[in-house]
Amino acid sequence: MELFRAVTVKEARKILAGHLPPPEKGEEVPLPLTLGRLVLRPVLAAEDVPGFDRSTMDGFAVRAADTFGASEGLPAYLEVAGEVFMGARPEGELRAGQAFRISTGGMLPPGADAVVMVEYTEELDEKTIGVTRPVAPGENVVVRGEDFRAGEVLLPAGHRVRPQDLGILAAAGVTAVEVRPVCRVGIISTGDELVPPEEKPAPGQVRDINSYTLSGAVRECGGEPRLYGIVGDSFPRLKESLAAALAENDLVLLSGGSSVGARDVAAAAIGALGKPGVLFHGVALKPGKPTIGAVVGGKPVFGLPGHPASALVVFELLVAPLIRSGAYPRETFREFPLRARLTRNLRSAAGREDFVRVRLIFRDGELHADPVLGKSGLIATLVKADGLAKIPASKEGVEAGEWVEVKMF
Amino acid sequence: MELFRAVTVKEARKILAGHLPPPEKGEEVPLPLTLGRLVLRPVLAAEDVPGFDRSTMDGFAVRAADTFGASEGLPAYLEVAGEVFMGARPEGELRAGQAFRISTGGMLPPGADAVVMVEYTEELDEKTIGVTRPVAPGENVVVRGEDFRAGEVLLPAGHRVRPQDLGILAAAGVTAVEVRPVCRVGIISTGDELVPPEEKPAPGQVRDINSYTLSGAVRECGGEPRLYGIVGDSFPRLKESLAAALAENDLVLLSGGSSVGARDVAAAAIGALGKPGVLFHGVALKPGKPTIGAVVGGKPVFGLPGHPASALVVFELLVAPLIRSGAYPRETFREFPLRARLTRNLRSAAGREDFVRVRLIFRDGELHADPVLGKSGLIATLVKADGLAKIPASKEGVEAGEWVEVKMF
Repeated sequence: MELFRAVTVKEARKILAGHLPPPEKGEEVPLPLTLGRLVLRPVLAAEDVPGFDRSTMDGFAVRAADTFGASEGLPAYLEVAGEVFMGARPEGELRAGQAFRISTGGMLPPGADAVVMVEYTEELDEKTIGVTRPVAPGENVVVRGEDFRAGEVLLPAGHRVRPQDLGILAAAGVTAVEVRPVCRVGIISTGDELVPPEEKPAPGQVRDINSYTLSGAVRECGGEPRLYGIVGDSFPRLKESLAAALAENDLVLLSGGSSVGARDVAAAAIGALGKPGVLFHGVALKPGKPTIGAVVGGKPVFGLPGHPASALVVFELLVAPLIRSGAYPRETFREFPLRARLTRNLRSAAGREDFVRVRLIFRDGELHADPVLGKSGLIATLVKADGLAKIPASKEGVEAGEWVEVKMF
Repeated sequence: MELFRAVTVKEARKILAGHLPPPEKGEEVPLPLTLGRLVLRPVLAAEDVPGFDRSTMDGFAVRAADTFGASEGLPAYLEVAGEVFMGARPEGELRAGQAFRISTGGMLPPGADAVVMVEYTEELDEKTIGVTRPVAPGENVVVRGEDFRAGEVLLPAGHRVRPQDLGILAAAGVTAVEVRPVCRVGIISTGDELVPPEEKPAPGQVRDINSYTLSGAVRECGGEPRLYGIVGDSFPRLKESLAAALAENDLVLLSGGSSVGARDVAAAAIGALGKPGVLFHGVALKPGKPTIGAVVGGKPVFGLPGHPASALVVFELLVAPLIRSGAYPRETFREFPLRARLTRNLRSAAGREDFVRVRLIFRDGELHADPVLGKSGLIATLVKADGLAKIPASKEGVEAGEWVEVKMF
C-alpha cells in the first residue's frame, strides 16, 4: 500500500499543523502547580514591584547631593537622623544633611535618593557619620517598578513555567494561572507477537517495549499517558481500541506491528476512524520511515514504527512538540542544541534525514558524538546512547571530525 | 562575621562530598514509576533477548548457502515449504532447498540462518520462489541474545531511568526496580520584610519569591519540596524551624535575608543545629557569594543568598546535583553543555566564577548568548533569560564574539 509519497519531517509538521484546531479552553491551577505548564494568555502585572524604592546595600540612605566631592581626606559629615527597619515604613523624612541607617532590602525614607555602602562611611559618634566617597542619585537603590511595572507582561502566552517564573508570579501576587490542559495520550501496541512485561514470552513472542518507552516519553513532555494494552493485528479489534483511545484522549499513538501486513492493518484502522484521516504515510527519515500521520476530529493520531528506536525518533520529531505545546517550535535550534564532532564516517542517503544514536564524550575541550552501532530494533542501542545526532537531508554522509547537531536524551 | 575564607565552587563541592554519607537504602517501585529515578544497584538481565533468532525483514527464511551465486539472470529456486506466523513457533524444520514465508519479527524456523527480502524474490508458483540476490548467513536476522544476554548489566548503578530504559526493563521482564528514595527538601525563607504571595505587601514589605523558585527547582530535579514558610530574622524562631525541617527532610534550604544582620542570624542558627555544622561561608562566585554550606547529621543544609538570581545560581551549582543523585557529577560538560558566542564584552574578577543570565539567539548558523542586564535582585532578569553563561575563574572578562559555556534553564 504505497498511495502516499514519503514526506519530509518539515512537510509532515506543516501538514499536521494545518489540520490542528486553535488552542482550546484553559484550566486554572494554583501557583505551585503551574510548574512545567504552558500559560494560555499573557499574565500581566497588577502592580509595580517593588512597590517602593529599596536599598541594595547595607549602609546609609542619603541625598546624593550631600555627598558630592566627599573623599577620604575630606569626608561629607551627615547627621544620623533615623533607622529603617526591615519590612517597615521608615519613620520621618530625610532632610538635607541627614542619613538614615538602612539594610539591604530596606525601604528608602522620603527625601533620600541613594545609599552609601557602610564600607565608605566612618562613624564619628552615635549621631554623626563621615561619607568618604560620593554616590550618584539612584546608586545602590532599586526604584519602585524597576523589577516590573503594573500592566507589564510577566509571562507571554504559550510560555512554559520554569522555577523563576513561579518566582515572578509570586512576586506579583498571582496565585492562580490559566494554563493549557495536560495533553492526554492514548497508547496502543499492536502485534500478534507481543506479550506484556510480566509474562514469560513463548517461542516466537517478545515483550511489549513501545508501550513503556512511549509512556515515559509522554510523561517527560508533560503529557498524561494512558495504556490501552496490546492489540493483535486484527482490523476490527484495532479499530475498536483506536476509537476508544481517541474518545478518551487528546492524541493517540499506535505502535508496531513491524510486518507489512500488520502495517497495512494499522493504516486501514486509522483510516477508518474519521475525517480528515490519514494525511501522510511514510516520512523521509531514518529510522522512522513507516510512519502514519493522521488527524481525526481535530486530534492527532500517529501510527509509529514498531522498532523501539524508530518509534522514539518519530516521537521526538513529530509527537513531542504537540504534547508539550500543541504546536511545532519555530526555533529549531532548541531541539538539537548541542554541537559535537562525529567520531567516525557515516553514510546516509540524500533527501532523507538520518538520526544516529550517539554516546557523548568530552575530550580535548570539545564534545564528540560516537555512534552506537546496532539495528534499530535493538532497545539496548538506545539505552547505551546519550542522544541523537542529526544528519541533514542535504548530505550524503558525514565524515569523522565533522560537526553534527545533537539532542540529548 | 568573616571567620571563613571564600571557597571556590569546586572546593565547596569537595568539602560537602567529604561529609555526606554513602547511599542509603533504596525503595522498590513498579516499572512505570521508575521514570526519572536513579537505580540503586546494577539491573541484570535474567534471560537472553530476543529469546530466539528473529527476522528483521518481510520475506523468506532460507539457508544462506542455498542462495550463493543467485542473480537476476540465474535465480536460486527454492521450495516454499511453510509459513511463520507472528508470535508462534514455526511448524517443522527448514531443509536444504526450502524457504519459509516470514514477516518482520517472525521466529526463524530451525535449519534457516538468513532471510531474503521479499524484494529480491519472484514467486513462480504457490510452491516455488526464485531468489535473485544471495544472502550471507545471519543476514536480515537478529540472533538470540543480540539485544542483550542473560547476566548482562542492563542499567548500571546510579543510572537515571529515561524512556528507553523503561523499554529495556520491559523487554527483560523486570517489573520492579530498587531506586534511590526521592530527596525530601525543606525550604525556609527568612526576612522580616517578606509576606506570602497571597498578601498585599505593606510599605517596606515584599512578597516571598525564593520559596517558589526553589520549590520549582527542587521539583525539576526530582526532589520533593516542603515549604516551612517565612520566618523572621530571629535566632530562636529560625533555629526551631531549621530543626523541624532537618528532622523531616533529607536536605534543607534557607534563603535570604539579604542584610548583613539577617545573614549573621542565619549563619548562627545553622551553626547551632549540630555536627559537623558550617563547612564554608562564602563562595568565590558571582552572583552567589554569601552562601553557607553545612552538613548536620549527614544531611546537607544550605544558607542561600536572598537575591533570587543568586539563590538559583547557587542552587544549580551546589544543591541540584545532590537532589538528583546525592553526588556531584564527574563529567562537568553535562552541566554547561552548550557553547555560544557572547554578544558583548563582559568584565569579571579573576579568581571568581561568574554566571551571567543570557538570552539565546540562533543567528548565521551559530548560537549567541546575549547577556540580560539588571541587578541580581530582580526576578524579571531571570524570567527574561534562557540560561546561564559561565565565565571561568581564570578569566578577567570575556570579549564579544568569544565562546562561553551555557546551561539552559
